Amino acid sequence: MTDGIVARYIRKARTLLSDQSAAGGLSERQSAQIREQLKDCAAGLGGEVSARQRAARLADTYLGLTDGGRAAFLRIIATEFGPDPKAVTKAHARYQEAIGSDAQWAAESGLRTAMRSARLRILTQFNALPNGMKFIVDLRADLLRHLNRDPALLAFDREIEIRLGAWFDVGFLELQRISWNSPALLLEKLIKYEAVHQISSWNDLKNRLDSDRRCYAFFHPRMPMEPLIFVEVALVDKLADNVQTLLDERAPVFDAHRAKTAIFYSISNTQVGLRGVSFGNFLLKRVVDDLKRDFPRLVTFATLSPLPKLRRWAEKNPEAWQRAFSEEIVQRVARHVGPKGPVVNSVEDIRAMLAHDEWVASVPLARALQPGLTRLVGHYLVLAKVDNRPFDPVARFHLGNGARIERINALADTSANGLQQSYGMMVNYLYDPDAIESNLEAFSREGTIATSGAVRRAWQHR
Amino acid sequence: MTDGIVARYIRKARTLLSDQSAAGGLSERQSAQIREQLKDCAAGLGGEVSARQRAARLADTYLGLTDGGRAAFLRIIATEFGPDPKAVTKAHARYQEAIGSDAQWAAESGLRTAMRSARLRILTQFNALPNGMKFIVDLRADLLRHLNRDPALLAFDREIEIRLGAWFDVGFLELQRISWNSPALLLEKLIKYEAVHQISSWNDLKNRLDSDRRCYAFFHPRMPMEPLIFVEVALVDKLADNVQTLLDERAPVFDAHRAKTAIFYSISNTQVGLRGVSFGNFLLKRVVDDLKRDFPRLVTFATLSPLPKLRRWAEKNPEAWQRAFSEEIVQRVARHVGPKGPVVNSVEDIRAMLAHDEWVASVPLARALQPGLTRLVGHYLVLAKVDNRPFDPVARFHLGNGARIERINALADTSANGLQQSYGMMVNYLYDPDAIESNLEAFSREGTIATSGAVRRAWQHR
Amino acid sequence: MTDGIVARYIRKARTLLSDQSAAGGLSERQSAQIREQLKDCAAGLGGEVSARQRAARLADTYLGLTDGGRAAFLRIIATEFGPDPKAVTKAHARYQEAIGSDAQWAAESGLRTAMRSARLRILTQFNALPNGMKFIVDLRADLLRHLNRDPALLAFDREIEIRLGAWFDVGFLELQRISWNSPALLLEKLIKYEAVHQISSWNDLKNRLDSDRRCYAFFHPRMPMEPLIFVEVALVDKLADNVQTLLDERAPVFDAHRAKTAIFYSISNTQVGLRGVSFGNFLLKRVVDDLKRDFPRLVTFATLSPLPKLRRWAEKNPEAWQRAFSEEIVQRVARHVGPKGPVVNSVEDIRAMLAHDEWVASVPLARALQPGLTRLVGHYLVLAKVDNRPFDPVARFHLGNGARIERINALADTSANGLQQSYGMMVNYLYDPDAIESNLEAFSREGTIATSGAVRRAWQHR
Amino acid sequence: MTDGIVARYIRKARTLLSDQSAAGGLSERQSAQIREQLKDCAAGLGGEVSARQRAARLADTYLGLTDGGRAAFLRIIATEFGPDPKAVTKAHARYQEAIGSDAQWAAESGLRTAMRSARLRILTQFNALPNGMKFIVDLRADLLRHLNRDPALLAFDREIEIRLGAWFDVGFLELQRISWNSPALLLEKLIKYEAVHQISSWNDLKNRLDSDRRCYAFFHPRMPMEPLIFVEVALVDKLADNVQTLLDERAPVFDAHRAKTAIFYSISNTQVGLRGVSFGNFLLKRVVDDLKRDFPRLVTFATLSPLPKLRRWAEKNPEAWQRAFSEEIVQRVARHVGPKGPVVNSVEDIRAMLAHDEWVASVPLARALQPGLTRLVGHYLVLAKVDNRPFDPVARFHLGNGARIERINALADTSANGLQQSYGMMVNYLYDPDAIESNLEAFSREGTIATSGAVRRAWQHR
Repeated sequence: MTDGIVARYIRKARTLLSDQSAAGGLSERQSAQIREQLKDCAAGLGGEVSARQRAARLADTYLGLTDGGRAAFLRIIATEFGPDPKAVTKAHARYQEAIGSDAQWAAESGLRTAMRSARLRILTQFNALPNGMKFIVDLRADLLRHLNRDPALLAFDREIEIRLGAWFDVGFLELQRISWNSPALLLEKLIKYEAVHQISSWNDLKNRLDSDRRCYAFFHPRMPMEPLIFVEVALVDKLADNVQTLLDERAPVFDAHRAKTAIFYSISNTQVGLRGVSFGNFLLKRVVDDLKRDFPRLVTFATLSPLPKLRRWAEKNPEAWQRAFSEEIVQRVARHVGPKGPVVNSVEDIRAMLAHDEWVASVPLARALQPGLTRLVGHYLVLAKVDNRPFDPVARFHLGNGARIERINALADTSANGLQQSYGMMVNYLYDPDAIESNLEAFSREGTIATSGAVRRAWQHR
Repeated sequence: MTDGIVARYIRKARTLLSDQSAAGGLSERQSAQIREQLKDCAAGLGGEVSARQRAARLADTYLGLTDGGRAAFLRIIATEFGPDPKAVTKAHARYQEAIGSDAQWAAESGLRTAMRSARLRILTQFNALPNGMKFIVDLRADLLRHLNRDPALLAFDREIEIRLGAWFDVGFLELQRISWNSPALLLEKLIKYEAVHQISSWNDLKNRLDSDRRCYAFFHPRMPMEPLIFVEVALVDKLADNVQTLLDERAPVFDAHRAKTAIFYSISNTQVGLRGVSFGNFLLKRVVDDLKRDFPRLVTFATLSPLPKLRRWAEKNPEAWQRAFSEEIVQRVARHVGPKGPVVNSVEDIRAMLAHDEWVASVPLARALQPGLTRLVGHYLVLAKVDNRPFDPVARFHLGNGARIERINALADTSANGLQQSYGMMVNYLYDPDAIESNLEAFSREGTIATSGAVRRAWQHR
Repeated sequence: MTDGIVARYIRKARTLLSDQSAAGGLSERQSAQIREQLKDCAAGLGGEVSARQRAARLADTYLGLTDGGRAAFLRIIATEFGPDPKAVTKAHARYQEAIGSDAQWAAESGLRTAMRSARLRILTQFNALPNGMKFIVDLRADLLRHLNRDPALLAFDREIEIRLGAWFDVGFLELQRISWNSPALLLEKLIKYEAVHQISSWNDLKNRLDSDRRCYAFFHPRMPMEPLIFVEVALVDKLADNVQTLLDERAPVFDAHRAKTAIFYSISNTQVGLRGVSFGNFLLKRVVDDLKRDFPRLVTFATLSPLPKLRRWAEKNPEAWQRAFSEEIVQRVARHVGPKGPVVNSVEDIRAMLAHDEWVASVPLARALQPGLTRLVGHYLVLAKVDNRPFDPVARFHLGNGARIERINALADTSANGLQQSYGMMVNYLYDPDAIESNLEAFSREGTIATSGAVRRAWQHR
Repeated sequence: MTDGIVARYIRKARTLLSDQSAAGGLSERQSAQIREQLKDCAAGLGGEVSARQRAARLADTYLGLTDGGRAAFLRIIATEFGPDPKAVTKAHARYQEAIGSDAQWAAESGLRTAMRSARLRILTQFNALPNGMKFIVDLRADLLRHLNRDPALLAFDREIEIRLGAWFDVGFLELQRISWNSPALLLEKLIKYEAVHQISSWNDLKNRLDSDRRCYAFFHPRMPMEPLIFVEVALVDKLADNVQTLLDERAPVFDAHRAKTAIFYSISNTQVGLRGVSFGNFLLKRVVDDLKRDFPRLVTFATLSPLPKLRRWAEKNPEAWQRAFSEEIVQRVARHVGPKGPVVNSVEDIRAMLAHDEWVASVPLARALQPGLTRLVGHYLVLAKVDNRPFDPVARFHLGNGARIERINALADTSANGLQQSYGMMVNYLYDPDAIESNLEAFSREGTIATSGAVRRAWQHR
């Protein structure tokens, strides 16, 4: 019977209802029933077998709900299973009194105990289920979605986040190589999760796992077939400047043992529900170490990275354009627009022209635009900040991992998406094994952004 | 260089100094240095590589200290890296104010954040080291030892306990069978950790892993060669009543496929540092399931368990003796004492006689004592309580796992230790697969102690 | 340098030249060179390292040849590296003389030694290469192709066959389950090797590995990612009678734990080069055992098998049609042909009509044909023989594995191929665990063909 | 029922009767019964299930026999299940006739077929049993023991040898590292099989697997827990000259990462039944490669090897003593004998003195003997031959693997056994990665024995 329930839960978990448009939460009868189930679950009476049945039934219920139903479900946990405010107040009073005395430590411990909530006890019950950890991470993803509309979920979210932080502590993560020899069940996830350059088919995937490629991922022991973050690497002869070339399935296979350069051309975070949980800044360092052991001739480790928010930022910062596009450049661009093209008299005209993708069809025009766009990107990467950290999320990630900005590439991603988000521009971040730690140190202490001389020159001088 | 430091730490961790008698804590210079290292560690600046070096160096330092030095080291973390009382007070004030309003949840979240301490950040750094989890568990074992003498360690201990509770959540534990086919590195630990019936040699161990035996343990993914708790099972024909017979290396191997009874004759918890962390009450249930699958003819699952605190309790409860030993028994015992034996006129005389082990040499005398001792044990198991739960720790464990008290056995452990702690008495706890959940439910809700009819009769009636 | 050569060989082995149409064998210079290489290889002087280099180079050469070149290469080994006829004659003379005396056994041993040839020494050198076993098996496949045209290859082929028989002894084979959790590298082979019902895409494959399917294969330790033979199983409620239904990707997943019937719907031999090497008749027996353990409710184990040579046989045996199609059937068929259909007056007309696939479009017509086609198949399966064994290769396989002919199904494979080779007819062979051994015994001793009562009735009576 | 029989066989195989002194073969009834069983087995009718039962029963019978019974059992197979002499003669006549014609190849194939015997069919049946390969290898070991007394076993032995040669082809062997992390079941075998320097306890074994040691073995996929040959390695700073020092359990652990020298101090062949089956000369080369990868600082790879037959040879070659011990050495020895020692006037007296172990107690005496003993060993290693190959089996092995004789060590094994077999002398054979192949080539082509300059000087000049 037990097995039956668990089995049913698993089946349901698989065919997880696609999010129905919120049908308006729960009926009163449903609410009452769920509240009852949650109470039993939080009380945790009886043996593990009944506990598992209860948890499986509850998960079952949850997965069967509409999006609105789930929001209501989460709200019940968030608001009705938190710590008892009276107990907290009392424990705090004792703590307050004891500060500075010998009794402080017992009182701190007491306050900590009073803060523990039934929410976590419920969560823990789910963790005992097969695939329970994935269920919790997905539940957190739901929670995050509803958080904006319902601040009552905040305390619950914070509590899950802390607990997930403990469960996904860096010490638990395992770096594994993924290859064509990996289970199809796992490879299928790459196709699903790849967020930077979509994998179009099993052939495309096989090409990305060929002998001149490498793929690495972090895994958690309780989510064995779920990569948490993965990085795709191309082994090539020199710094790559175009992603379409890199992904061309018909390109000949390169002899990896002669490769001098490893290009990290795609890094994807896969679990929305782990937002705020850090996997450390160790992933790429370890990938570099592993590659160096297998291919001793490698000397350069670098990314070919997108600028996902360049355009959005650029459109709001006209002064950056003024700085990037000198009069000389404007004139050169004007000369290459062609008779059918738009009139270009000013930087404003260039911005307007770049709002559509036609310019990319003309090689001379694209070439004339390149110095201006390169400066624009330089400005964006080095000066655009939020909370004193780089505005660009990809830059934030790589600089925080110890890389430096090495080169800015024009016409590097000419897919519709690449033109759309960043005028086709991409960046190489360089991981110099000898400089990773010092870059990282300087960035984390003083926010110093490491750049190559070429990049510095590109945007500093006119 | 990194590797050098980590390697050195590992080597030291292995040859962990046997606890020197506290040589008086730390010198001032040492304290200052350690404080500095801890601060850097808690700040967590820079990359993982330097973080790991720092943590390895700190662990190295710790392992090199005397017992007194370690106590001082732990005190520094406990008292200087806790939450900031002012921040806690402030956050609590906000929370206090917000109770009942919409702002309550953000305020709760804020209070929770204020409670987070640098102690945990330090702990987490250790977890990233190879064998780091074992280091933390052993550090907690040290902490527990010093706790009695130094209440300032209390808040730190509570914080570690909560974190270890998350890290060792039941969902992480894996049940594995241990056999003669397991790594010697692991089997060596069984010899070291067996706490109930000492393993005297590799031959003794091999005998306990023979084809008519089974051994199971719970493991944690971050401590792969460390069994957390293990149970040894003998496959036999009927309920065992003597442990020496069970462990006899020269006894012929029983045909396991004809076995009807599985006897759990030894269960050992191995990690002192995990005190207070529950592994759930699922271990024996799962062992029963696994055994039933492999040996479909098994019908009885029971323990042969010690009564480690019987004598200590009995010596303080003379009225229990009065109840257990009727006048008739006293007289029968008196008749069998023999001319050289002590004079036995009363229950008191019997108690005095049992204080020495000579009585066991005479079979008639032992037999005359049996009904009295059996009643005494019945009384002890069913009535002796602490906090409304059984006084006997083994009974507490098995009843809390869903077993019932099945049979009380005299002359069941006639080793010096067996006579010493429990007058040679042992108990069979029965795990009836169909009753486990209901026993467990009744015990956890109302404290009901399940017993067989025979046991009830033994101690209830005179 | 060594590694370089081996690596190059491996690369070449992967991109194995597609068989070029024989370009006329080898030039004289090539022949001389190859002869030299083979001599060195057969002499086997020096260490393993040089031996491996030599073997890798030789394999490299072979893989680079055209089909004609390979034929010539094989001929050199076959005719120039056999046993020395003089030595054989001499050893045989001694043996002849010694028969019946004490010296017979040493003489037999001497004759055996004289028969050993350098061909095997060459083969053995290849086996030491990574993927060497696969190279040898593929080389044998080439050899078999050339055998018809060149009888000089015969002795070599026989010697390889004997050696492959030793290397692929049943004791070496391992049954493994293949699932969606298996390496993509392996699953890709299924797509390539499936010989009965083509796998059209990764989705089709995934569907065949879903929770209501099973797939098993035999593997050899020296060819780890190469299934030698594999069987695909569907878990269903009752005996399947149509393969299109079984393979429908859009059909709902069946709850395997409620399945009563396992249908082996596709069995593929993958290695042409292993012709004549028996994998025993144990495969399906072991699959049945494995399925019974996982799904205790299964009671029926049967195939849904093609009749790949039915039409070819039927077209040459007009008397079988006469026997199968009674006058009554002919008339009923005539009534359903329809106004636009062909004229049907006789069995001959029916045969002619069945030569084209139009008939299948009319359900009444197909139904009218069914009794005749069923009898025709019954006749074919039970009476058509070659060397006193069933003419049908699939029947030979299953009867030789202990199955019985259970049911004949019309309109069971209505693909173009199914109509083409067997008028859409298929057969269920039944594996009754309790009868497998006795069926097998009777079939191997007396050629008895086990059939169900229904099948017997179908073809025996008019 | 099947399983019952197989299970019983396995149990018996485990408790294999210790060889009883031949009780005189088989009774007539037993012979007849065994003959019948063998006939059924060779006929191979029916399915694999019955075949396995038959084979298990036969193995069961065999294991239950006395040594004499086994000899008789083997004789039955050897003499009654060989090829049919008439068929061989006929096939040979055809072959004889066809030599030189196109029909030669079919005729050779026919002769080969006629030579195939039922003996191998019987053997093959055993291979299908679990542990069947080990059974066959042990059966061959029995066969070899009886071979001297019964030449009728010769042809059977040759046939097994050829088949085992195919089954244990180098391509099947896998090199694996053995460590303290290996299964106890496997480690136990090391204790049992170590033939050079006995392993006295699990502690001794653990010491030999410590961090400054390595152990490697070849395995066969069908005998997974049986090392076929294993080598023990010590990582040290310089060429070892004393084995007692190397095996000292109380010696401190050396930091392996600083080691410059790897000493192969023990190499054991474990399976008597594989006599004549070559594992190639690749073992030590691969061990060297593996060690170099793990410990890049290693520069010297050498053995510390015994001279197991030195004394036996020396006692029969007085002229070698004359050559080794100059008059000057005799006088020096005479001076150090001491007043209570024997009179030493001649080389003969020295030989007589060395027949007893007292001399080793006196350091000056031992030192005086050293130059003579070293020359004696030099002579023995370089000049003592059998069939033009070194007389010493250990020298034969290492020279055949590409080593050179590097150094001769006196007082290198002062155990009773070491003094007894070789006057305490041992040898270092050096494996120079760059010279292995050329040494091997020269040794296998011309029998050249590679030696260091020091060794050459030691025995060549007086």
